[in-house]
Amino acid sequence: MERKLRIGITHGDINGVSYEVILKTLADPHIVEVCTPIVYGASKVAAYHRKALDLPPFNFNMITSAEYCAEGKVNMINCFEEELKVELAKATPQAGEAAFLALEAATADLQAGFLDAIVTAPINKHTIQSDRFDFPGHTEYFENRVGQGKKSLMILLNERIRVALVTTHVPLAKVPSLITKDAILEKLAIFNSSLRDDFRIEKPRIAVLSLNPHAGESGLLGDEEQNVIVPALEEAGRQGILCFGPYAADGFFGSGHFAQFDGVLAMYHDQGLAPFKTLAMDDGVNFTAGLPIVRTSPAHGTAYDITGKNVASELSFRNALYLAADVCVNRARNKEERANPLRKQYFDKSGDKEVLDLNTPEKED
Amino acid sequence: MERKLRIGITHGDINGVSYEVILKTLADPHIVEVCTPIVYGASKVAAYHRKALDLPPFNFNMITSAEYCAEGKVNMINCFEEELKVELAKATPQAGEAAFLALEAATADLQAGFLDAIVTAPINKHTIQSDRFDFPGHTEYFENRVGQGKKSLMILLNERIRVALVTTHVPLAKVPSLITKDAILEKLAIFNSSLRDDFRIEKPRIAVLSLNPHAGESGLLGDEEQNVIVPALEEAGRQGILCFGPYAADGFFGSGHFAQFDGVLAMYHDQGLAPFKTLAMDDGVNFTAGLPIVRTSPAHGTAYDITGKNVASELSFRNALYLAADVCVNRARNKEERANPLRKQYFDKSGDKEVLDLNTPEKED
Repeated sequence: MERKLRIGITHGDINGVSYEVILKTLADPHIVEVCTPIVYGASKVAAYHRKALDLPPFNFNMITSAEYCAEGKVNMINCFEEELKVELAKATPQAGEAAFLALEAATADLQAGFLDAIVTAPINKHTIQSDRFDFPGHTEYFENRVGQGKKSLMILLNERIRVALVTTHVPLAKVPSLITKDAILEKLAIFNSSLRDDFRIEKPRIAVLSLNPHAGESGLLGDEEQNVIVPALEEAGRQGILCFGPYAADGFFGSGHFAQFDGVLAMYHDQGLAPFKTLAMDDGVNFTAGLPIVRTSPAHGTAYDITGKNVASELSFRNALYLAADVCVNRARNKEERANPLRKQYFDKSGDKEVLDLNTPEKED
Repeated sequence: MERKLRIGITHGDINGVSYEVILKTLADPHIVEVCTPIVYGASKVAAYHRKALDLPPFNFNMITSAEYCAEGKVNMINCFEEELKVELAKATPQAGEAAFLALEAATADLQAGFLDAIVTAPINKHTIQSDRFDFPGHTEYFENRVGQGKKSLMILLNERIRVALVTTHVPLAKVPSLITKDAILEKLAIFNSSLRDDFRIEKPRIAVLSLNPHAGESGLLGDEEQNVIVPALEEAGRQGILCFGPYAADGFFGSGHFAQFDGVLAMYHDQGLAPFKTLAMDDGVNFTAGLPIVRTSPAHGTAYDITGKNVASELSFRNALYLAADVCVNRARNKEERANPLRKQYFDKSGDKEVLDLNTPEKED
């Protein structure tokens, strides 16, 4: 029998809602039928949150390495020697350190081949910073650590929509100068490949939003559409990417037009994420596309405002776990299918005949 | 008996969905119980659309001036001498001219006191342009024509949310330089007054969004929050406006936080309108706040893509009509209440006594 997918779960910020959504998700007995979860965290912290939230008893199968994980059980690796102090809804240096160590342990196991994918619970992006973690967030960390030189692309998705961005965490004033033909082409290429390979959409259709309101209104409200975005779309089209636009963001979301596309490429953070989160209040998932490894996370953050109240929804986290499993399965299917392609058929059309020529050696495409 | 509110309806672009949403709205017999509608348009164009859409027969009470409108009926004023040619879903100069003439006729009647409010059906902002109409849209036209020097503010709303913008139809690259303390204070003042007077919310709470992603992340992603927006909010607070923020747009909409406020002030077009239209797909209304007159419109445009297909929803238009009536009623109630305020009570506290002093003349506040 084939072994089940092994999915590492990092516990994120121990003072936020991470353990709440992890515990609520893993309490569902169906999870261990889909995959073998391995939580990188601390059993005492898990117990603290379980009691604080008054959740039903829950047993982890404690292991010392992902090598020894048991199928059919929820496994946990204690990543800490010392005691951790949970301070609900507080940003503490110890919580930052704990988030980092769990992340490092899981990433090491991923690199060693013990894990098939990682799902990261939300971190506090301030407290995790140190001389060993100097990244805006998880995405850049994974790009740096296990990217093998590849560029990543954050895709946010739920059942209805998949959104990616050309520019991400930069001041709004810098956005226009970063909207270049190359930047758009690079993101379109990663987005297109991921939709094809990770989501197995054969010919993905990507909508591209405009930079300016009303798509620049024929140049009256800005010329980046005419000078940058349209040429980029034309070039991408020549490369075989099915992309459309640029569309004015408000009408695009308001008319439900987004439902006709497999992906939406927005020009900047709030343009893409404000409508996305409006659509995906509770069930948004973040997928790091473009890398050789599989990593997902819930689209929400540490949510200190509702920490410890037992009101956090685990839907995003559960969807992140399912998506990680789906992408692993899809990539394995691609590999299998592409490993033994059907032989190309060559015909001998000489001398008024047309017969299959089995003597022609197979060519590499 | 008091006369019913008289609401002028301009027919907008005759080649778009205007007549469809007007006819569908006015077919509801309840409308004439709420107000006396007067359509500024063309009876033959209305008949053309009715037949093209296969809508039930509909009778207008044709009049030559709003003075002669009949209560309990849907009135219409023919604004054209010549025949108008309808070309569905096409941008034609004649349709632009027809939209302009109806707008002029209704505005003149509003100024003459024959109308209490105007609801404008959507125009094509390109074809209406001429030496007599040189505005980006209706809002600026009304500000110029009947604003009496006052500044207007576009408020977009539905049942769940009211959104206004600091900057509107400008290229994104120009937005940061237009986000000034004065600009924010001006918009907050109009927004606050309108929520109080037009919507009769006694102490309106206004949320203000940030310019940069993640509200600038303590300066890492831009400093306009610290240098401009926060000082503006502090100043507005000193002026008695209950404003809060600045909030990161994505989390603000994603968490449903917007439900806790009476109004949301966004910094620029797509930041406010993309999430707004995502929330208000079919029922968004545009209200021009800040002016002495009352003007509303549906939040959608001419919608050429669905013109003539009998699939346009009249919900936005109907809500715009109801809102116009509500604002008229609210303003009348304010006027009435403020006309005869309770006398301020002055007390004579001299000589160890404290008695009501009815001899002190009333002071003006």
